[in-house]
Amino acid sequence: MNKKGLLIVISGFSGAGKGTVVKQLIKKYNYSLSVSATTREPREGEVDGREYYFKTKEEFQNLIDYNGFIEWAQYVENYYGTPRAFVEEEMEKGHHVILEIEVQGALNIKNQYKDALLIFITPPSAKELRNRLVGRGTEDAQTVEKRMKQAQKETKDMVNYDYIVVNDDLEECVQTVHGIIQCETCKLSNNKEFIEEITNQLNEQ
Amino acid sequence: MNKKGLLIVISGFSGAGKGTVVKQLIKKYNYSLSVSATTREPREGEVDGREYYFKTKEEFQNLIDYNGFIEWAQYVENYYGTPRAFVEEEMEKGHHVILEIEVQGALNIKNQYKDALLIFITPPSAKELRNRLVGRGTEDAQTVEKRMKQAQKETKDMVNYDYIVVNDDLEECVQTVHGIIQCETCKLSNNKEFIEEITNQLNEQ
Repeated sequence: MNKKGLLIVISGFSGAGKGTVVKQLIKKYNYSLSVSATTREPREGEVDGREYYFKTKEEFQNLIDYNGFIEWAQYVENYYGTPRAFVEEEMEKGHHVILEIEVQGALNIKNQYKDALLIFITPPSAKELRNRLVGRGTEDAQTVEKRMKQAQKETKDMVNYDYIVVNDDLEECVQTVHGIIQCETCKLSNNKEFIEEITNQLNEQ
Repeated sequence: MNKKGLLIVISGFSGAGKGTVVKQLIKKYNYSLSVSATTREPREGEVDGREYYFKTKEEFQNLIDYNGFIEWAQYVENYYGTPRAFVEEEMEKGHHVILEIEVQGALNIKNQYKDALLIFITPPSAKELRNRLVGRGTEDAQTVEKRMKQAQKETKDMVNYDYIVVNDDLEECVQTVHGIIQCETCKLSNNKEFIEEITNQLNEQ
């Protein structure tokens, strides 16, 4: 069986810990991480091809023109996009590809890839979300309020996801997301060929 | 959230290793195991309430009459059944209940409990199934052939299961089944209340 890999989209409120969950998934298991392209300047310590592919506006526009992104968006004056080639080549090889992406991008992807697995990571409560945002210590009070407002808006899109995973304990959350991906490969609809194979074997023996 | 527990039905070819998988699941995780009732005599080392609830034919018939089983069947001259009270009480408490049961019983249960999770455990190939049956050393050649024939018949029912799990490596198989159960609890349809809750919290804060 040479099955195509899955496309796994991970979203969640800012402060839900999805970045850490994705890092752990890549570190512990054999998933391929899609790296986004952006026109913003690299920050200190960022490596081209690791955090982002850093592109000029001309290069980015050229990729848009040639259908090089499965989704892209503009925030303030910068562009962000998911390169198509990597995602499709990896899936073709049978690798599961993880994308960490905002709710709007996630829905665009579901429209193009009906089998994409949409996973939403959330803290157990609004109170805990605020605690985490404040606890980071990197955001001022105004930014915390902005992120809470953003989360409030994003709740409307949660119903478009296939799975809701509560990130209460990091290790458990990583296990659960891994479990969801494994689980997908065991679904009856993904095993029709296997059933046919073992039925033939048992009939012939 | 006080959610009802799931009903998990595990079946598989004789020799697929489902008994060992179930034992490991109960040992490692917080699942409730449904113990069957039977009218057959206890074998050496078997404990009432652990391997089976041992009943007289009169007691068993009485339970049938009072709708005390969610499914029951007769093999040769003995009766086997799944007591209703334990399963429903555990689910009501929010515990996930595991049932190890044959294909026919599994389908009966799916007819009564639409949300039951049906998992079929299979070795990777017919050849491997035979190897395991022979390797056990407890069955004579005739019994091995009988079990292979039985497996051949059971392939027809595999399409009625929700998940097909290949038991190639025991540890991995146990992890996968555990993952499938966790995964079910994360499905959007099982999280509507949670979404409502966190939406309200974010709107009110």
